[in-house]
Amino acid sequence: MKLEPVAIVTGATRGIGKSIVERLSLHGVNCVGIGSSMRSISNEELRRSMKHVSKNQRHRLLAIDFSEWPTWVDSKREFQGIEYCANGREEVGDFKIFDMLKSWNSQDKEVRYYLSLLINCAGITQESLSIRTDSAEMKNIMNINLLSPVSMCNLTIKNMIKDRKTIGADKPRYILNVSSVLGKPKVYLPGTSLYSASKAGLGQYSNVLEQEVSKYGIITKSVQLGPIQDTDMVQNLKSNGIQLDEFAKRLGIPVSTKAEATRLILDEYLEKLLESGQVSGTV
Amino acid sequence: MKLEPVAIVTGATRGIGKSIVERLSLHGVNCVGIGSSMRSISNEELRRSMKHVSKNQRHRLLAIDFSEWPTWVDSKREFQGIEYCANGREEVGDFKIFDMLKSWNSQDKEVRYYLSLLINCAGITQESLSIRTDSAEMKNIMNINLLSPVSMCNLTIKNMIKDRKTIGADKPRYILNVSSVLGKPKVYLPGTSLYSASKAGLGQYSNVLEQEVSKYGIITKSVQLGPIQDTDMVQNLKSNGIQLDEFAKRLGIPVSTKAEATRLILDEYLEKLLESGQVSGTV
Repeated sequence: MKLEPVAIVTGATRGIGKSIVERLSLHGVNCVGIGSSMRSISNEELRRSMKHVSKNQRHRLLAIDFSEWPTWVDSKREFQGIEYCANGREEVGDFKIFDMLKSWNSQDKEVRYYLSLLINCAGITQESLSIRTDSAEMKNIMNINLLSPVSMCNLTIKNMIKDRKTIGADKPRYILNVSSVLGKPKVYLPGTSLYSASKAGLGQYSNVLEQEVSKYGIITKSVQLGPIQDTDMVQNLKSNGIQLDEFAKRLGIPVSTKAEATRLILDEYLEKLLESGQVSGTV
Repeated sequence: MKLEPVAIVTGATRGIGKSIVERLSLHGVNCVGIGSSMRSISNEELRRSMKHVSKNQRHRLLAIDFSEWPTWVDSKREFQGIEYCANGREEVGDFKIFDMLKSWNSQDKEVRYYLSLLINCAGITQESLSIRTDSAEMKNIMNINLLSPVSMCNLTIKNMIKDRKTIGADKPRYILNVSSVLGKPKVYLPGTSLYSASKAGLGQYSNVLEQEVSKYGIITKSVQLGPIQDTDMVQNLKSNGIQLDEFAKRLGIPVSTKAEATRLILDEYLEKLLESGQVSGTV
């Protein structure tokens, strides 16, 4: 039986998320990318970034609006999505978040897809003083940057624990939460108070979660990214007068490229996959 | 004209909050205590903890349910409350959060009440693994521990900036957010993932806010409290099998009493008030 690792990547439609999907899929990992709307996941460039390097490789894109937390969690409803197979077949339909496991596994008894990785990459920034940030914006930032990632962790862990019983404990299982240097002690940038709070919260959450789930063989980490020159996020901040990269230089925080950040996030996971013999080639 | 400092204290009905109101009022500070319900603010013991040591001293208690964020902010509605004057007069009625400033100032032209201090003390704990914490509980924790405090900061800062123009820039103005050691790096207690995230978020928020408002003469700090032996919070955790004080000892975090924690939070502010000649006696 061939084991096929599946990775869920939120914020997959652009920036780091898209770059992560590209690299994972190049290594044969099956990707479920989540974007906020049907429009964002229908992007042709995103579709091209999802590689098919092996015959069983499948990808799915889902439209889930994380600003609508907790509705999207509690409704248990289906979300619009697009599925891509290696043979070029495409299917647009309504899917539940985790039903690719059941659906893909029912089609070939020699292949077993299992949940191997969750990367919470979705996030929005803030460019306003706290007293000028209204409760609607505060809610959006917390729902997208902290509460939706926490719910994604909880849902994923339940599925990983289930998988573990049937597939074995030795398979690489990771939860990676993309946080920010702005969530770190001593790094305080005016105009980002709620954003920074959400990222500090996500970092602390991840570390407590690690204590709770390591016994299930799930490795939980948060990655404190510095500013990344070539993303929309930093470009938008710049055009609004927030010099995130200059701020970072002043504090001695490295400014990186998307490619460097993607390696930082993925290398350990891909090395583990390579060791387990589920992907081939060099990381 | 006599200047009368006003302090707003959330979570005033028990634990540290109640202890803070007692100490502030003993020093002649006018207190607005916020509790979650009319029932919690009607507690006779709480009423006795509010001292009247000078003739102009007034206190007010307000019932605001912080779990109902952002409704309580956006509704701009009145909240049930009780007002206590030095002469023993009591009044139950509906009040807006900040209308004590206008109302009290209209009654004696020789006295001017101004907003001097906000202490965000309200908080709820968590005693469940992340995967067993549903979105309703997650929302409660974030609304009470993080988002309501942020809204209280924003509303208070606007009023402090207004006061500053009429009263002068040299008066002590503080915002103190009560956070927790569980929000600090390297301190990770299983069963408190969302609580820890909310406290890490509140700490980071406070530090960014300090950068935004120090130019208005407002000092913003967060206080990382360790476990306090004699509060309901720690007693409840204990009875649910979470040994917060033992955990703290293992990590070398001091376990304190309510009295010690209250001094830690208030001493700097009270010293500044004493210097400014607005309270007398020793701190």
